Amino acid sequence: MESFRFSMPTQIIFGKDTERQTGAETAKIGKRVLFHYGSGSIRKSGLYDRVVESLKSAGVEYVELGGVQPNPRLSLVQEGIRLCREQKLDAVLAVGGGSVIDSAKAIAVGVPYTGDVWDFYTGKAVPSQIIPVGVVLTIPAAGSEASKSSVISREEGNFKLALDIDLIKPAFAIMNPELTYTLPPYQTACGAADIMAHIMERYFTNVKNVELTDRLCEATLKTVIRNVPIVLRDPANYDARAEIMWAGTVAHNDLLSTGRVGDWASHMLEHEISALYDVAHGAGLAVVFPAWMKYTYKHDVQRFVQFAVRVWGVEENFADPEETALEGIRRLEQFLSGIGLPVRMEELPVPTDRLEEMAERAVAKGSIGSFLPLAKSEAASIYKLAVKA
Amino acid sequence: MESFRFSMPTQIIFGKDTERQTGAETAKIGKRVLFHYGSGSIRKSGLYDRVVESLKSAGVEYVELGGVQPNPRLSLVQEGIRLCREQKLDAVLAVGGGSVIDSAKAIAVGVPYTGDVWDFYTGKAVPSQIIPVGVVLTIPAAGSEASKSSVISREEGNFKLALDIDLIKPAFAIMNPELTYTLPPYQTACGAADIMAHIMERYFTNVKNVELTDRLCEATLKTVIRNVPIVLRDPANYDARAEIMWAGTVAHNDLLSTGRVGDWASHMLEHEISALYDVAHGAGLAVVFPAWMKYTYKHDVQRFVQFAVRVWGVEENFADPEETALEGIRRLEQFLSGIGLPVRMEELPVPTDRLEEMAERAVAKGSIGSFLPLAKSEAASIYKLAVKA
Repeated sequence: MESFRFSMPTQIIFGKDTERQTGAETAKIGKRVLFHYGSGSIRKSGLYDRVVESLKSAGVEYVELGGVQPNPRLSLVQEGIRLCREQKLDAVLAVGGGSVIDSAKAIAVGVPYTGDVWDFYTGKAVPSQIIPVGVVLTIPAAGSEASKSSVISREEGNFKLALDIDLIKPAFAIMNPELTYTLPPYQTACGAADIMAHIMERYFTNVKNVELTDRLCEATLKTVIRNVPIVLRDPANYDARAEIMWAGTVAHNDLLSTGRVGDWASHMLEHEISALYDVAHGAGLAVVFPAWMKYTYKHDVQRFVQFAVRVWGVEENFADPEETALEGIRRLEQFLSGIGLPVRMEELPVPTDRLEEMAERAVAKGSIGSFLPLAKSEAASIYKLAVKA
Repeated sequence: MESFRFSMPTQIIFGKDTERQTGAETAKIGKRVLFHYGSGSIRKSGLYDRVVESLKSAGVEYVELGGVQPNPRLSLVQEGIRLCREQKLDAVLAVGGGSVIDSAKAIAVGVPYTGDVWDFYTGKAVPSQIIPVGVVLTIPAAGSEASKSSVISREEGNFKLALDIDLIKPAFAIMNPELTYTLPPYQTACGAADIMAHIMERYFTNVKNVELTDRLCEATLKTVIRNVPIVLRDPANYDARAEIMWAGTVAHNDLLSTGRVGDWASHMLEHEISALYDVAHGAGLAVVFPAWMKYTYKHDVQRFVQFAVRVWGVEENFADPEETALEGIRRLEQFLSGIGLPVRMEELPVPTDRLEEMAERAVAKGSIGSFLPLAKSEAASIYKLAVKA
């Protein structure tokens, strides 16, 4: 086990009707806040009205900034920063999914900074200050509600880069599983793939003797795997929605990283797909991850055997570990297909004529991944394994 | 799943040599601190010197208060409060195990309070202020390093009462598994029983649809069960010590309680044993828990079947669930015996002539437990099940 530092400061407020506590929680972090959201879906669902009512009754003033898109854009972040400064706002309230939260984190960390916030994403500067961020979560997927990550896309040059630092963990996250009842099946499935990917990125490690976190990863994965088909059949099943929603947070709050080193190559390979083609992140991961596994499993067959046996309940073939390992990968692929996700580039659908370019861009800063570090040619091979069946 | 609030604000600093960061971490929470510890064991091991050196090099002044005993005493807590006030100390640094940390929490919460700190334990008052607590952990057991609990014993009247409130969670906890190499086998085993009990208290719940936390509980239990025999054979096995140490924190930081209601009757039954006879808490739990299970399993046989199958790997007897449930309890008892713990009153050893009195005291404030609430007669029955084989 590796040494580590860990805390989970985000106050989680989980359960039915918890969005009615938005005002009271927000009042603890700010007097005048930026109310940040995405499309009109929160208006249609009535969540917008409930949040506004809760803010007003708690005496919190707010300025609105909607319009966050999937793969949130730097330009809107910069607009948010300007707005916070002009209007003297002292906190950001994100109401939405991972894109809205990532955008809110970028705004919050950009407000006290005199340079361009994009510096934090390129690594040119490291943030040391932030205005607080609160969250009302509507989509279990990115885990951004309690994570140290924010991923922002810059239109110019098709860049999609991540900032990872404890400083940007939200102050609170309100999580009502009922708010996820209206998620369409495809978005529910994409969220599940994202959650599973966050766990699997951590699971495939070269660090030895990480038994507790191995088992916590397996526990969280199994919970997602069992509950996603339930909500696809029965979208208003509170308990199954609750399991998925809480699993999404646990998957990415870094408890499952304690003492180990994650891989993250699949995320970087996916970012190049969604930077070029603006596909759903979870769908991109469903395409990339099985391909990554087929390319890397020989690096540590026994870890893939453990994955197959413990997560997927594959009966171990003791005489042929590779067969068991491959069966685990097959089960993952079948599961993703079964919940309606693409598992090949053509199903995303995206063209496959720029794989070399994507590989080049993925490794622009050097090799990616830790389980098996990948240079350009390996990255390209994985993209190719993700082409047709 | 039930609604819940959860955060884990304690900054964990985990790994080899981390005690050398004590000064730097302490400086973040105080300028003049109470250095609180137990017996001379930290002097013998050299930890005392390393902590002092680290405090000095970080410019932190300190006043010492040693002498914390197992089942920490109110009288020493009151002395600590006086000392903090007289010497104008602004934080408490606990170096030791659960008893030292519980005592430190009691001091820290008592300092800003004008009344008697015991009021917080009897429920006469609720604390609203605290001076910060830092921890250097030496015994994985109580989980107090990141928990909201403090248990204090008042000599007069043999009372042992708990305070449970988020306010008292430590600011940081330094955890170096190497510091646990010198723990004697019996104390290692008692710690394991305490960790397992913390998980099992949460596991046996009437709340339905708690799949993620069920699986997280099972993951943590299995990790303890596999690693304790390793460290009993090989006390300086870093990785196994590390698994147990981190499991001890995860077991009691309330992640495993999210969305569920724990039982805690076994803890209350044990508190009456150790209040009268001053036995090790973990050993008392090893005696009480199997007896509690034998008394309660019929209340929800399927939950005990799940415990048997998933935690202990019992092959399920589908035709006779009770047989499987009982086999799980038997495996627990065999495990505890196998690591050198008592599983009967006579082995603790304590006399068995005051069981009715203990039962009376255990339910003094009303019935105990939530899985199956116990009145006096049930409590007495459980004590009787803990008498001889």
